[in-house]
Amino acid sequence: MSEVTLELIRQAHERIRGRIHRTPVLTSGRLDELSGSALFFKCENFQKTGSFKARGAANAVRSLSEGEAAHGVATHSSGNHAAALSWAASERGIPATVVMPRTASPNKIASVERYGGRIVFCEPTHRAREEAAARVVGETGAVLIHPYNDLRIIAGQGTAAVELLDEVPDLDIIVCPVGGGGLLARTAIAAKAIRPQVRIFGGEPEGAADASQSLASGVRRPVERPSSIADGLLAFVGDLTFPVMQRLVDGIGTVPDEAIGAAARRLLEVLKVVVEPSGAVGYAAVAEGSVACRGMRVGIILSGGNLDLGRVPWAK
Amino acid sequence: MSEVTLELIRQAHERIRGRIHRTPVLTSGRLDELSGSALFFKCENFQKTGSFKARGAANAVRSLSEGEAAHGVATHSSGNHAAALSWAASERGIPATVVMPRTASPNKIASVERYGGRIVFCEPTHRAREEAAARVVGETGAVLIHPYNDLRIIAGQGTAAVELLDEVPDLDIIVCPVGGGGLLARTAIAAKAIRPQVRIFGGEPEGAADASQSLASGVRRPVERPSSIADGLLAFVGDLTFPVMQRLVDGIGTVPDEAIGAAARRLLEVLKVVVEPSGAVGYAAVAEGSVACRGMRVGIILSGGNLDLGRVPWAK
Repeated sequence: MSEVTLELIRQAHERIRGRIHRTPVLTSGRLDELSGSALFFKCENFQKTGSFKARGAANAVRSLSEGEAAHGVATHSSGNHAAALSWAASERGIPATVVMPRTASPNKIASVERYGGRIVFCEPTHRAREEAAARVVGETGAVLIHPYNDLRIIAGQGTAAVELLDEVPDLDIIVCPVGGGGLLARTAIAAKAIRPQVRIFGGEPEGAADASQSLASGVRRPVERPSSIADGLLAFVGDLTFPVMQRLVDGIGTVPDEAIGAAARRLLEVLKVVVEPSGAVGYAAVAEGSVACRGMRVGIILSGGNLDLGRVPWAK
Repeated sequence: MSEVTLELIRQAHERIRGRIHRTPVLTSGRLDELSGSALFFKCENFQKTGSFKARGAANAVRSLSEGEAAHGVATHSSGNHAAALSWAASERGIPATVVMPRTASPNKIASVERYGGRIVFCEPTHRAREEAAARVVGETGAVLIHPYNDLRIIAGQGTAAVELLDEVPDLDIIVCPVGGGGLLARTAIAAKAIRPQVRIFGGEPEGAADASQSLASGVRRPVERPSSIADGLLAFVGDLTFPVMQRLVDGIGTVPDEAIGAAARRLLEVLKVVVEPSGAVGYAAVAEGSVACRGMRVGIILSGGNLDLGRVPWAK
């Protein structure tokens, strides 16, 4: 099984339905006017644990055999996947250990603790994360559930696009944030299988533009010190997700942090929803014009809502 | 026609469906745990113009004959009804004039202007509002659409409860904010006609507790200087809504301003939705325990989301 198909995504949907929220699709006349498009917001900020990551985590944990599950699960994550995996593990009654960078948001740390996850802190680099996670797996015998470079995770996260197209079948474009690329890859696979003519775009912070640069050069290359208020999108695009993006993604729009903060604020003021900066980057790319979509029907995945009220992007 | 029946509410629903949003019902495992109940939040903060008032306004404006509509509509309102009526009028292509207290939130004033309503400011008292509105009607020949003491408004606003019970048929209790009583009266009429055993409660700010005091004494009596961060609930309970409340409402829980602010903040942090203080009072009454509902299935109407980010209740 080297590839995630629509069939696997539908199986994942069967597996997790009833455990996750079927999140609503919201619209706003005023946001339509401002963008010159018809926008359909898939609100994964309302998902269990506050982000779409609950879909992949639930699918991964529910896919484990009894034997595999016996020693629990482990991962590394800046936050939302950590909380989602802790939630999914506690739902199945098995332990979860998560490696988090010591710079993670206090509210994301609190969220992991709330779901009973054990936290191991590390330096905020890709290497430190991977090494610490390998150490945890060695010590505990837990199954490593990588935050995005994992077929069970990708299949689970493909289910949001299935629901979106189920509700709004005639979309021209779907835009979602890109970090490690799990959400974007799964969205592309699911959406193009259901509706081949739909175009798929990512929105990426300028300070962590490894996906757009890698796609442009054809070679997967990390950004040395990724930095953005979109703290969930600093991960390096994965070797499983990158080939999918090369094949199925139509483009990536990069956006500066101010535009991300402004987008999150506008969603709060006009759409009345709380979206964390990482979750607002797809909309920021549309609002900024870095994904061209005037006159089109645009699905936008708001991927998470775990905003730290102590660090709101407009309160600087 | 002296009474609003379920039949009239269903006619209103037919009339406005397609013009208004069918708002989602959200749930949260964490808020359920905190309250010891199963909570179902009807998100009228996502409604057109940001509050449930769009339902009544759309029904009222669409009910007018061509002749009645010719000179436009007028009203007095601290904000949400003003914006809703301006929106409904502009949708039909007729003018709207609204009398607003000079203390109205800047964002609510801006909202009326955005929908093309003409504003006449007045002193923030019941008498000044009614007098200014009567003057406007005399000068323009507009039809007065009272914010809550109007059968067309009451019928339109009954449609939110119809949708809520359509989605969650087995509720034990429904709780909603009470100001002039339009929302509470319509909710009670619609809900008890559909499900006679459902109990209906209002949540009211302590600083504007005219509804609970009037119900207790059996006589409609205003509070002298109503004051609360829930600025949409300062209106005096109407002579059309009061008898309905006496007959059909099971109780009113009053809540202090701090509890209202805390409720709005918790909805923002946990449910990820933006609710203005007035819109959060139903939930505040549940969270405070002033409406007893442990172990029950509770529908809560979040009536509006027009939060002024410059005046957020936790930023004092």
